[in-house]
Amino acid sequence: MFDYKLLAALGAVVEQGGFDRAAQVLGLSQSAVSQRIKLLETRVGQPVLIRANPPEPTEMGRRLLNHVQQVRLLESDLGDLIPDLDECSSTQRLRVALNADSLATWWAPAIGAFSAQQPLLLDLLVEDQDVGLRRMRAGEVAACLCAVERPVAGARSLALGSMRYRALASADFLERHFPNGVSLRALTGVPAIVFGPDDRLQHRYLAALGIEGGFVHHLCPSSEGFVRLIEAGIGWGLVPELQVLESLASGALCEVVADTPVDVPLYWHHWRNGGELLNRLTEHLVRTVPTWLVKAERNLARRG
Amino acid sequence: MFDYKLLAALGAVVEQGGFDRAAQVLGLSQSAVSQRIKLLETRVGQPVLIRANPPEPTEMGRRLLNHVQQVRLLESDLGDLIPDLDECSSTQRLRVALNADSLATWWAPAIGAFSAQQPLLLDLLVEDQDVGLRRMRAGEVAACLCAVERPVAGARSLALGSMRYRALASADFLERHFPNGVSLRALTGVPAIVFGPDDRLQHRYLAALGIEGGFVHHLCPSSEGFVRLIEAGIGWGLVPELQVLESLASGALCEVVADTPVDVPLYWHHWRNGGELLNRLTEHLVRTVPTWLVKAERNLARRG
Repeated sequence: MFDYKLLAALGAVVEQGGFDRAAQVLGLSQSAVSQRIKLLETRVGQPVLIRANPPEPTEMGRRLLNHVQQVRLLESDLGDLIPDLDECSSTQRLRVALNADSLATWWAPAIGAFSAQQPLLLDLLVEDQDVGLRRMRAGEVAACLCAVERPVAGARSLALGSMRYRALASADFLERHFPNGVSLRALTGVPAIVFGPDDRLQHRYLAALGIEGGFVHHLCPSSEGFVRLIEAGIGWGLVPELQVLESLASGALCEVVADTPVDVPLYWHHWRNGGELLNRLTEHLVRTVPTWLVKAERNLARRG
Repeated sequence: MFDYKLLAALGAVVEQGGFDRAAQVLGLSQSAVSQRIKLLETRVGQPVLIRANPPEPTEMGRRLLNHVQQVRLLESDLGDLIPDLDECSSTQRLRVALNADSLATWWAPAIGAFSAQQPLLLDLLVEDQDVGLRRMRAGEVAACLCAVERPVAGARSLALGSMRYRALASADFLERHFPNGVSLRALTGVPAIVFGPDDRLQHRYLAALGIEGGFVHHLCPSSEGFVRLIEAGIGWGLVPELQVLESLASGALCEVVADTPVDVPLYWHHWRNGGELLNRLTEHLVRTVPTWLVKAERNLARRG
């Protein structure tokens, strides 16, 4: 068997983002943690950590972390039967990658009831839709939410429904830039807001309206900040309908082009052998999440 | 003089997160962009980019980017006088690092009026308070908001005021875990929420209450997600008062321990020679931001 004390040290250094904090969590001295990592590296014959700030796992380190996390999940199943086996009976941790917009809208209410009944600590990683899947493949997370259906080896994916986005701007912004109504041709010249280099939603929206080429934009990698910038009249952008129901109803935010939604599908990817807790969470999500999402995909459909 | 065509290619590849998108923005072929980067590397005698996905600047690449951004800011001042000098008269971009909580609360309303009057595109980077300063030092941003007063070389810092945080939980969460009132001793055993490994606010709060050692916690690196998790009764944590005024007034969220605010100071760091636009933005922020913040620092003060 592996020496799990060494693997636990690796897990703590990566999860806590440093040797000193890992030492605190493990109740060891910092030099003891260092020694365990060095011993682990001697055993596997290569580095497991890149000594940066914060330390990052090497490819080998990632594989070992993946393994530790799977073992922990399996242990937690056993722990239900034999609670005293666990040396330090901590609540089960689950690492999940999800997109900022899900976290800003339906994730917390969906998970709330589950969390009240199950001892569970969540390590959430906010990632663009497709990066989560890379983390899944690298074994850094036990589950992820993403727009791609195809699962990685060892995992399953389940369709939850689609997030409906609308291209929105403040009434004031539209009045300032388009006093005579929105001109599609001029839209590329007024500032959009883009989440980050991987966010192609605004590009796809413009392309679907027949507008090709670049457009001026701010960059704002925060779901809440994105909506705040739009509300403050700084730009237009695609926002989950769920996040702005009140502002839409009050007319504070308006669609840039009437009735042109973009639906983005969401799939829940999870390890097949991720243990009982992950299975229960999966069942819970599949049962409850569709109420917040839309079923059919409708993209830039126009009325009439 | 440097060959700014080469430096502009470097800037575009980093800002756009890839060679193909950089090519689109520059109106060049992808191979032309590649050639410019290679020529730049031949001239400086070392790599300027790490060919990852997305490409990242090397230490030398960062210095060159810093230089390009400063030159662009200076050009924009001149551009006001001689508008035709600019080859492709794009709106001025400004890269700013700020903490997620400012972006989720006062940043957009504070910047809104400024943005309506000035042609300005913002590249926002969301960073923990102290990482922003490192980016400032590395020349990756023209300005940053952080909790530290001392400026890096070549920059100035200005005090804006403090964000007031309160340790909050949902009424339901408190009732479930503490039916007989909150016990400080038991607080470490009920899940807190922590933004990420660099977030020590919950640690400092507990320490100030005389509670040392670890505590169980979820990790949620999203300002909006953080509040949503608390609202859904998944944990307790320190939230900017500004972000939850309504939930506090309605009683949906309650202080874990009555009247124990934690004030975190905010300083605006900006390049001294960052050009006229950055100066005007700085004046605007110094004039308007204090209305959203508190003046005096009050930490865990109790009434009476």
